[in-house]
Amino acid sequence: MQMYDLIQKTRRKEALTEEQIHFIVDGFTRGEIPEYMMSAWMMAVCCQGLTDAETAALTLAMRDSGECLSMESVGGITVDKHSTGGIGDKTTLLLAPIVAACGGYVPKMSGRGLGFTGGTIDKLESIPNFSTSLPMERFLEITKEIGCCVIAQSGNLVPADKKMYALRNLTATVDSIPLICSSIMSKKLALGADCILLDVKFGHGAFMKTPEDAQLLARAMVDVGKRAGKQCRAVLTDMNAPLGANVGNALEVLEVIRILRGEVRNPLSELSTTLAAHMLSLSGKGSVEKCMEMARTALDSGAALRKFADMIAAQGGDAEVTEHPELLPQSDAKYTASAPNDGYISSMQSEEVGLACLELGAGRTAASSEIDYGAGVELHAFVGEAVTAGQPLFTVYGKTEELCKKAAARILQCTQITAEKPEAQPLLYQIIS
Amino acid sequence: MQMYDLIQKTRRKEALTEEQIHFIVDGFTRGEIPEYMMSAWMMAVCCQGLTDAETAALTLAMRDSGECLSMESVGGITVDKHSTGGIGDKTTLLLAPIVAACGGYVPKMSGRGLGFTGGTIDKLESIPNFSTSLPMERFLEITKEIGCCVIAQSGNLVPADKKMYALRNLTATVDSIPLICSSIMSKKLALGADCILLDVKFGHGAFMKTPEDAQLLARAMVDVGKRAGKQCRAVLTDMNAPLGANVGNALEVLEVIRILRGEVRNPLSELSTTLAAHMLSLSGKGSVEKCMEMARTALDSGAALRKFADMIAAQGGDAEVTEHPELLPQSDAKYTASAPNDGYISSMQSEEVGLACLELGAGRTAASSEIDYGAGVELHAFVGEAVTAGQPLFTVYGKTEELCKKAAARILQCTQITAEKPEAQPLLYQIIS
Repeated sequence: MQMYDLIQKTRRKEALTEEQIHFIVDGFTRGEIPEYMMSAWMMAVCCQGLTDAETAALTLAMRDSGECLSMESVGGITVDKHSTGGIGDKTTLLLAPIVAACGGYVPKMSGRGLGFTGGTIDKLESIPNFSTSLPMERFLEITKEIGCCVIAQSGNLVPADKKMYALRNLTATVDSIPLICSSIMSKKLALGADCILLDVKFGHGAFMKTPEDAQLLARAMVDVGKRAGKQCRAVLTDMNAPLGANVGNALEVLEVIRILRGEVRNPLSELSTTLAAHMLSLSGKGSVEKCMEMARTALDSGAALRKFADMIAAQGGDAEVTEHPELLPQSDAKYTASAPNDGYISSMQSEEVGLACLELGAGRTAASSEIDYGAGVELHAFVGEAVTAGQPLFTVYGKTEELCKKAAARILQCTQITAEKPEAQPLLYQIIS
Repeated sequence: MQMYDLIQKTRRKEALTEEQIHFIVDGFTRGEIPEYMMSAWMMAVCCQGLTDAETAALTLAMRDSGECLSMESVGGITVDKHSTGGIGDKTTLLLAPIVAACGGYVPKMSGRGLGFTGGTIDKLESIPNFSTSLPMERFLEITKEIGCCVIAQSGNLVPADKKMYALRNLTATVDSIPLICSSIMSKKLALGADCILLDVKFGHGAFMKTPEDAQLLARAMVDVGKRAGKQCRAVLTDMNAPLGANVGNALEVLEVIRILRGEVRNPLSELSTTLAAHMLSLSGKGSVEKCMEMARTALDSGAALRKFADMIAAQGGDAEVTEHPELLPQSDAKYTASAPNDGYISSMQSEEVGLACLELGAGRTAASSEIDYGAGVELHAFVGEAVTAGQPLFTVYGKTEELCKKAAARILQCTQITAEKPEAQPLLYQIIS
């Protein structure tokens, strides 16, 4: 078998066999296929696509390039969730304790943020002493005991993806549905949970700009998950505006605690409850409707808050934050921006909000950047709501007032206030199963 | 400027500027842009294409990556010719002396053969003592004095093409019209002749399989030539059957001498005269019709034969071969194959004939292969002609009779003899200017 011929085939839209795809992935992972061949092949994939069967074969070959975990010791049906990433997306911190409170098991490996979208791991690490790097056995033990555990990606899971992603990132071959799908799903499959819920975002602050593109990616991922024998479903959700009121690490944990304590109900709490219900239903806990009831009760009764506190404690963190959120890191300075005129907030571009938070120090511009955990923004009014001139719109938190003012100006720039009430857009656009 | 963004643009079919294309070519030639980025970009070019303006910019950037020759010292209008390569294509050896005999100037750099198509340089080197590597000044001097000189590519012409071609050859990015066009035309433009005639072959034995593909390539090359201020024209010619009677290095020189001596007239002599007429007309010697008259006279009068002998002598070769062709190298063994049945020769796949000659030792399987100059095949009957069972079809020449018989079997396999007379196909299909 010659890599040249396989590149040629993909370039000509002739389907590769499973064996041929394994040859590519294994050869590249072992360093036998040079980068210049792999980048040419991946560009051919970007331009010509892959069939569903090829995408599935690619995903499995990538999964098998390294270690695969077994979730057997958890002793129950495990359910994983993946979000394609958004601004203010802290749903994992809400749905994991909700699912756990309903008797489900959520063993979750998450990433750190890079660029304008935050990472779940960074958010959790804003909780004093919280550890996101645990030995695999402890990860599974906590999942078994408490029902949920969230750690950083570690170990030798899917080395093929690490190498391929690094190369894609240098050769403009990132945005390709088969390549995104295999990158995400190979890691999910290597982790080994029984069920997978995929939250595919679309809009300004998302990788997929339109619902149509999000649909294609969601369908590809669900197809691969099912071919690999998993219970798999995808939801398409709107990322045109930030998700929830707060963006920034400690600020997002604060919003999570407020919701878990029953102090706040907003579109974020509603979406997180819905995602939890889908995860429970995938785990065999009943219909989505029945699971929705269970999830709501777990949230409203405080059972989910207790699970969150238990998880924090099990991972070495200070669970007191759930009672005393003021223990979370806070920024030195803040600045509140007001509505410049009367009207309705018709849009607030989430990508710009994310970039403003990045400038504030809430995210990383390079993998080695240090994070200001207290930095970020808290919205006082949401898209679709009426505001009057002079009313507080949002508060920005950061190291200095100057930084805060600069970020506030950027966010105001991307906030549209119009005379007419905008049409309401549902947060959950579609379910694909 | 970031290579990443330029790859992305080409991938998205957004046109690059001249400056951006120069950045890519210069960066890659100097080793600043890594191979994995260049191969991704070239694959994007293969899949998404380039505009005519981008193709021209790429060609000029490649031309400017190394030395560019000046033809000024020749003291007349110079005309170059390029063939995309075929089986038995010895037109250069005929048209160069014809054009020279009519007062034109043909400074020609040619390639060696690799794979199943022969190289003009190998054919000339079958003439005892003929030298194809001359200093540039001598090359131009001979062109000035005699009107034609054919040497091997040398010097630091278009280093970008050398690097790009080596990478394309490893990454299945060879067959792309903008990349083929820029590779050919950058070398023609660096050589610096005033006029360029392009012979684009199509059919079994050609790189372009259909007239439509050949048309696209021809149009792209003519467009680039004109943008670079050259007199430029392309002819599309049929390469489904071998060109002329003989295939193999010394055998092809033998056929050339027979034609120049007036002993043979066949479709090859007709095509060569036509190509010479176009070259003369491009050089400003009058209409194609008038130049056709001149070319025919040069061939029929023996003037072209004398120019050929002069060129051989000037390049150190034994010009006696034009009087005594038996001085050319001959193979030790031969084998004549006969027609298996009555009928018309309806096809003889030239690629298979080329591969049979390669097996005989007439070509190179690797750049370092040694050539058997006497090996090859001589056809006694052409496509379209009637044959009777037992009539000699062709004679194969090689080192041993066994080798000859094997090659003969392969050529018989690809020779179709049918009851009905096939429709005649013109050798010259179209002129594009």
